[in-house]
Amino acid sequence: MDQTQELIGEPMGESDLERPAQEDCPCKEDMFPKASRRQVLRGGSLLTAAAASVLLPRRGALAADADDAGSWTVPGQLAKSDYGTRSSYETVVREATPAGTDALTPHQSLWGIITPSGLHFERHHNGVPTIDPAQHRLLIHGMVDRPMKYSVTDLKRFPSVSRTLFIECSGNSGGAARSAALKTAQATHGLTSTSEWTGVRVSTLMSAVGVKDSAAWVLAEGADGAMLSRSVPIDKIMDDAFVAYAQNGEAIRPENGYPMRLILPGWEGNINVKWLRRLKIGDKPFMTREETGKYTDLITLTGKARQFSWVMEAKSLITFPSGDMRLPGKGFYEITGIAWSGRAPIERVEISTDGGKSWSLAALQEPILPKAHTRFRYPWFWDGSEAIIESRATDQTGYVQPTKAFLTAHEGVGPTYHYNGIQSWKISADGSVSNVLVA
Amino acid sequence: MDQTQELIGEPMGESDLERPAQEDCPCKEDMFPKASRRQVLRGGSLLTAAAASVLLPRRGALAADADDAGSWTVPGQLAKSDYGTRSSYETVVREATPAGTDALTPHQSLWGIITPSGLHFERHHNGVPTIDPAQHRLLIHGMVDRPMKYSVTDLKRFPSVSRTLFIECSGNSGGAARSAALKTAQATHGLTSTSEWTGVRVSTLMSAVGVKDSAAWVLAEGADGAMLSRSVPIDKIMDDAFVAYAQNGEAIRPENGYPMRLILPGWEGNINVKWLRRLKIGDKPFMTREETGKYTDLITLTGKARQFSWVMEAKSLITFPSGDMRLPGKGFYEITGIAWSGRAPIERVEISTDGGKSWSLAALQEPILPKAHTRFRYPWFWDGSEAIIESRATDQTGYVQPTKAFLTAHEGVGPTYHYNGIQSWKISADGSVSNVLVA
Repeated sequence: MDQTQELIGEPMGESDLERPAQEDCPCKEDMFPKASRRQVLRGGSLLTAAAASVLLPRRGALAADADDAGSWTVPGQLAKSDYGTRSSYETVVREATPAGTDALTPHQSLWGIITPSGLHFERHHNGVPTIDPAQHRLLIHGMVDRPMKYSVTDLKRFPSVSRTLFIECSGNSGGAARSAALKTAQATHGLTSTSEWTGVRVSTLMSAVGVKDSAAWVLAEGADGAMLSRSVPIDKIMDDAFVAYAQNGEAIRPENGYPMRLILPGWEGNINVKWLRRLKIGDKPFMTREETGKYTDLITLTGKARQFSWVMEAKSLITFPSGDMRLPGKGFYEITGIAWSGRAPIERVEISTDGGKSWSLAALQEPILPKAHTRFRYPWFWDGSEAIIESRATDQTGYVQPTKAFLTAHEGVGPTYHYNGIQSWKISADGSVSNVLVA
Repeated sequence: MDQTQELIGEPMGESDLERPAQEDCPCKEDMFPKASRRQVLRGGSLLTAAAASVLLPRRGALAADADDAGSWTVPGQLAKSDYGTRSSYETVVREATPAGTDALTPHQSLWGIITPSGLHFERHHNGVPTIDPAQHRLLIHGMVDRPMKYSVTDLKRFPSVSRTLFIECSGNSGGAARSAALKTAQATHGLTSTSEWTGVRVSTLMSAVGVKDSAAWVLAEGADGAMLSRSVPIDKIMDDAFVAYAQNGEAIRPENGYPMRLILPGWEGNINVKWLRRLKIGDKPFMTREETGKYTDLITLTGKARQFSWVMEAKSLITFPSGDMRLPGKGFYEITGIAWSGRAPIERVEISTDGGKSWSLAALQEPILPKAHTRFRYPWFWDGSEAIIESRATDQTGYVQPTKAFLTAHEGVGPTYHYNGIQSWKISADGSVSNVLVA
């Protein structure tokens, strides 16, 4: 018996079996004639058809499958033609910001790497538009031989690609750098989510419209009220950009760009333009509001701002235990969380349980997908004393997630965008977990 | 220009740009002073902080982000704390059988490999029970040193594992073998779906309770009205079985076993016992109704029935074009679909467009995950004449999906369970697609 076993669960007694079971219910002799038991061999044995039919229990008709009914139990809800919903006992939601510009993924309540579409974060600059897909067109023009427009149905005719990818707002975790008032993993890091996206490579569309040799930049414009617009270098467009129409198997959700959005794997959320209406090909950046006034990164140490800082660098987050939880007592816990990088697959995640003094390797759940959340796990025996737990991601380029102290020394108290410092959670002696700012 | 380009989409004209854009709206000069254009270099250049602030547009306050407002557009829906839903334009549902025992995944409307949880197929024998997770316990007893019971919270304390896996009802596509009246891919093959599942390995739990050396079989029992029960060999239990509490990142859906189900990768759906209440360890199979009267496979040629036929063999399905669709005309189409095997990863999928006379390799979308749906794609130029399209999967064991004729010759007109014959769709000259039974 190891540490795990002595501390989890309760001993079971005979009274826990108060409910009858197939193997010991009153109808057992009817259902399982003794003859049948003797006929059966282990694995892949054959019964005669006659014997099989004898074995069919015929008791009552409570169930839709009459021969499945047990007269001792309560029938459940039958299937109806529907789109299924959660159990009414499940109440986790995206928390919205007071201004209504964001709603955050509750990472502390999630497992694996797929974010349920209903809990994918949202961020928009003038709300979520209501778009009739039958009316929507994607325009492609500018430095092309044949300006074209495509309906959703048209897009689905082209060769397609599916990729499981994170999308992260460049502002994600920026607030966590300076405020322990953000209590939960949702509040500190809720602006990143992972979905399986399906769509058409932009390079395929560029081939269809005949992009000119002088093309160097592509303007991507959304159909939302903010008309969010960004310039994308043609190299990224031709490398791995695609126009997605599906998310986790079905149509993209409204707050994620229904009926289509641009996907630029590994790049900051806003440039993955949602409700994509237009791609205009040009030979220089279009200098939109979102790359001049917004989404530049002020470096307070120098007084200058980074522009076109697209890639999201390596980052990680412990989701359990995390802020605002309470451990019931000392014992075994699996520390788990997610790590991601916009440059390359995650190479390793290290865990510290002493505030960054020492580090140990976490296990990574396979498959480790490039530019997607990667789930890590680390077995831990909490001895009941105060502890600070941290995770540190390294991607396959060798880039190591920095400390807050490093970022402060090199960039000042900002920038809020593209902050990727190590997150620290303090576990107090009473088991309560809180967000702490470790220098 | 290739075949793709000449046939998809419409030429775009100037009038398609009726809506103003950031680059040419009346406020352009305010928003993008000429000075800023000259300052900008391609990629990663620096603006001074002062210049950056000058660039912030300040027009109107329609939007939640005041500086994001465009006075020429309509604000959308702001974020609220919620669990997101589909666009109201999306109406695809699981179709339920009249008896209410099944509801089917609409594969013809899905992309990628993840099935949205709301569209995962359901199959139950006495309806979906409503279970309060706080009251639910998993009992483990029988040939163990320490009979134990575990709450959902307890289970989440143990080391966890996540896997993306298909679950397929053993009856899936059995009806398609004999009835062209099943019109759609949903009707013929809707009893398989893929999710990312997270839970605790049963081997971990076996270690916790101290399983005895004489253990050979494990009874898994559901808490549903049918009290569905199956016997599982200990080798499978110790190999890769797990008790899942999460599906696609969040709690398992009610119709998929909330709050916990057994997962036996690659094995027929019913033995992945939902609403898991009890694991009893024994030294022989428990001979429950579901492995005697039900879920044996009658081989009509011999009059005998296979028992303990757990593994789902290699199968594939073209989801586009598929039954009840209508192609708008000759031209380029991407034939796409899913392939899966309960034994090993998919090695290859071949496509025929001449009713099985000749075959060509389809592309497989990576990552190709073991015991999960694998998405395949095949570029096709339809010349407008009648065609019969088929897909044929081969897994890494070398097993090749058989034809209906082969199965009929070797097993007779049955069995309905574990039927995995090649599916044929006929495309008529008018573009209509229908289910056909090819000998």
